[in-house]
Amino acid sequence: MIEGRFITLEGGEGAGKSTQLRALAAALRARGLEVVETREPGGSEGAEAIRSLLLTGGADRWSARAEALLFAAARADHIEKTIRPALARGAWVLSDRFLDSSRAYQGQGALSDADIVTLHRIGSEGFLPDRTLFLTLPAGEAEARAKVRDGGASDRIGGRDQSFHRAVADAFARFATDEAARFRAIDASGEPGAVTARLIDALADLLP
Amino acid sequence: MIEGRFITLEGGEGAGKSTQLRALAAALRARGLEVVETREPGGSEGAEAIRSLLLTGGADRWSARAEALLFAAARADHIEKTIRPALARGAWVLSDRFLDSSRAYQGQGALSDADIVTLHRIGSEGFLPDRTLFLTLPAGEAEARAKVRDGGASDRIGGRDQSFHRAVADAFARFATDEAARFRAIDASGEPGAVTARLIDALADLLP
Repeated sequence: MIEGRFITLEGGEGAGKSTQLRALAAALRARGLEVVETREPGGSEGAEAIRSLLLTGGADRWSARAEALLFAAARADHIEKTIRPALARGAWVLSDRFLDSSRAYQGQGALSDADIVTLHRIGSEGFLPDRTLFLTLPAGEAEARAKVRDGGASDRIGGRDQSFHRAVADAFARFATDEAARFRAIDASGEPGAVTARLIDALADLLP
Repeated sequence: MIEGRFITLEGGEGAGKSTQLRALAAALRARGLEVVETREPGGSEGAEAIRSLLLTGGADRWSARAEALLFAAARADHIEKTIRPALARGAWVLSDRFLDSSRAYQGQGALSDADIVTLHRIGSEGFLPDRTLFLTLPAGEAEARAKVRDGGASDRIGGRDQSFHRAVADAFARFATDEAARFRAIDASGEPGAVTARLIDALADLLP
């Protein structure tokens, strides 16, 4: 029986995570694997209900602390209802964002990285991906891409200033260095097919 | 200026918390105090939205872990948006349930009491009531009262079996012993006016 694997795609806005997730899923399916595509916040019925609380309303609707708890609650539901059952039947699960996004986005204001990791321990017994693909782009390029895509509009989380997004990128880079066994930093610039090939390479040791 | 005080009413189903909270609020207003009556889960716009997620759906809609995170998120919002602003202007805030209900209800299955307290530290910097009034009833009497009130119907939290409700009562009693400075155990049996008088007595040292 094929062993299920849990793979997350991380990175700032505009790095191409959603596009690459679809391409990666297609490539894995072409190898005969069952693939579940999911995303955070969301990915299960309960987590999608929490997502709609998180992404609507004004910037001050939730404090950083309440927001971190809501993300952790959504993640607990996502893991229990979607991710673990898929892995148990041998599927590969690809998630657009996961814990590391909470650490990068919520873990540098009122809350420490250790606090976010503690919420994940309490909510989900510290459940981690088999591999985290960290898509990197030069800062200018990521911003240009995000702007084109959003046409200037944005949600509660995306709509923050440049220094915030730079701090997020620095946080991701730090996690990738600190947890080198789980993370692979992937150059997300250039032709999309070439980026997908790099992602597949970064999973070579996990493929059946 | 009068100093605001934060008072919570705790106890199992059918102990008379809601009735006594209204009577206590009236008695404090008669002494010239501004009183804010609130409840958990809920008590602020965001927390009420989380409340509706918590109390609807089947018994297995949320795992114990996701549920504890949602309660902590609602509490963080309740404290930030309702409780702290009221205390800052010198009001007395009376809440029907608070942290100790999470400890008693969610802190004895998958999660430990220490986990629930940690969620409260991360979500709300460990903010505690000035006094917690723990309404106690002989087990049989509480169950009879709850049954009469609900007419057999119940929500996701209330609708659990007798051994669960006994464990909840034991947990409250343990907290009251361990944190004697904050807790007062109040006999909630007998005529409602007599119970209210006991509650007022238990706040005597805090009254202006």
